[in-house]
Amino acid sequence: MTGSLVIVGTGPGDPDLMTPATRRALSGATDLVGYGPYLDRVPAGPSAQVRHASDNRVELDRARQALRLASAGRHVAVVSGGDPGVFAMASAVFEAVESGEPMWRDVDIRVEPGVTAMLAAAAEVGAPLGGDFCAVSLSDNLKSWATIERRLTAAAEGDFVIAFYNPASRARPDGIKRAFGLLGSLKAKETVVVLVRAAGTADATCIVTTLGAADTSVIDMRTLVIIGSSATRTIARPEGLPWVYTPRSEPGARS
Amino acid sequence: MTGSLVIVGTGPGDPDLMTPATRRALSGATDLVGYGPYLDRVPAGPSAQVRHASDNRVELDRARQALRLASAGRHVAVVSGGDPGVFAMASAVFEAVESGEPMWRDVDIRVEPGVTAMLAAAAEVGAPLGGDFCAVSLSDNLKSWATIERRLTAAAEGDFVIAFYNPASRARPDGIKRAFGLLGSLKAKETVVVLVRAAGTADATCIVTTLGAADTSVIDMRTLVIIGSSATRTIARPEGLPWVYTPRSEPGARS
Repeated sequence: MTGSLVIVGTGPGDPDLMTPATRRALSGATDLVGYGPYLDRVPAGPSAQVRHASDNRVELDRARQALRLASAGRHVAVVSGGDPGVFAMASAVFEAVESGEPMWRDVDIRVEPGVTAMLAAAAEVGAPLGGDFCAVSLSDNLKSWATIERRLTAAAEGDFVIAFYNPASRARPDGIKRAFGLLGSLKAKETVVVLVRAAGTADATCIVTTLGAADTSVIDMRTLVIIGSSATRTIARPEGLPWVYTPRSEPGARS
Repeated sequence: MTGSLVIVGTGPGDPDLMTPATRRALSGATDLVGYGPYLDRVPAGPSAQVRHASDNRVELDRARQALRLASAGRHVAVVSGGDPGVFAMASAVFEAVESGEPMWRDVDIRVEPGVTAMLAAAAEVGAPLGGDFCAVSLSDNLKSWATIERRLTAAAEGDFVIAFYNPASRARPDGIKRAFGLLGSLKAKETVVVLVRAAGTADATCIVTTLGAADTSVIDMRTLVIIGSSATRTIARPEGLPWVYTPRSEPGARS
């Protein structure tokens, strides 16, 4: 009895941003394992398909449950939002494989890439990720604040565009303030900042501001934050928000 | 006469990794503008659809052509590979808007996100982007080598996982060697390195190696390079390549 495990991401939320490969993987699964709200985005599958919904705080347990099911011959899809490899379930599954039952190494595992939140957020306002960029999770229940500070300091030093994932939650309201405080001491106050809530859904809202003027109190767990590099620019439009983009080229460097 | 301009990415190559939203945008366009090989990935559209293929070195010219067409009332899709906002055409379009005709600011512009190459490459081998990561283009015809060195040094300082785009071309065979040389002086020789050629296509090939042992001569313009953080790990499998992943959590930091 040979099972399988595919790790997928539903994309940012809009069903039209879920890839056909992911949709097919989902419809072919006997079992779906994932955080409830992500499972809710999955179209109805075969009537015998079993949904194992969980809360969002037990990633390794969920990964082990999926591996047990696949080892027992089920065809399991582990469901994340966005891309499953970016601050999501793929890493948890491989951590569970490494630390778990030896037979789990024989499981047929596949990862399907998806559209991760920062790409959808960037698309809402233009092309802020047009230059070199980095992605940092501000969740400090998985790593120390010292590591986050080290990463932010290096990102400022390298003048990267920075995308924050998991910028705030009820359990950690202060991290985002500390992050803005640190970056405010290292980067110009005029640095362009973009806050996109519910990127890639019909409810998306955007704020274009600066590092000096940003109101961090509006940032919640559904917000993707993009902090520009020194080159990130805005273009005023006749109406609505300005466009935001980061040029690919430096002045004078284009050959 | 009101035209429009949508900037899309075809994804890594496999048509099943192109989002339905992008497919719809492409089929609704009167004109497609893009680098020839990317246009070749676009399914046949309405018979009156015009394809304006160009070479890969004239991004700003291509952006201006698209804006002229849209200003004249055409419905234009600008076609990149991957995600259009990551080292691709979206940034060039906004640069052309800012520096171009005032009327171009009135054009109805939209960006559709897609699956960028590093996500497809990561999925081929596991979850190497599972922790904080950055993306750096090694193309030095758009920026100085000094900027690239500054970014790589900062990325090493911050212990980010690093994805290289545009790692090598016939015109720039030495950049990748210099990049590996620099990182080799800053990071452990045992750092996990992944080379994925043609990620997200039927021709994908992967090499899992280390910073000390990597053979940079096999890296070409279709290769996506991932350099691990100090936490990136491999898991041996009974057959085939090892899995590669970066844990989300630091030892001891999980609450």
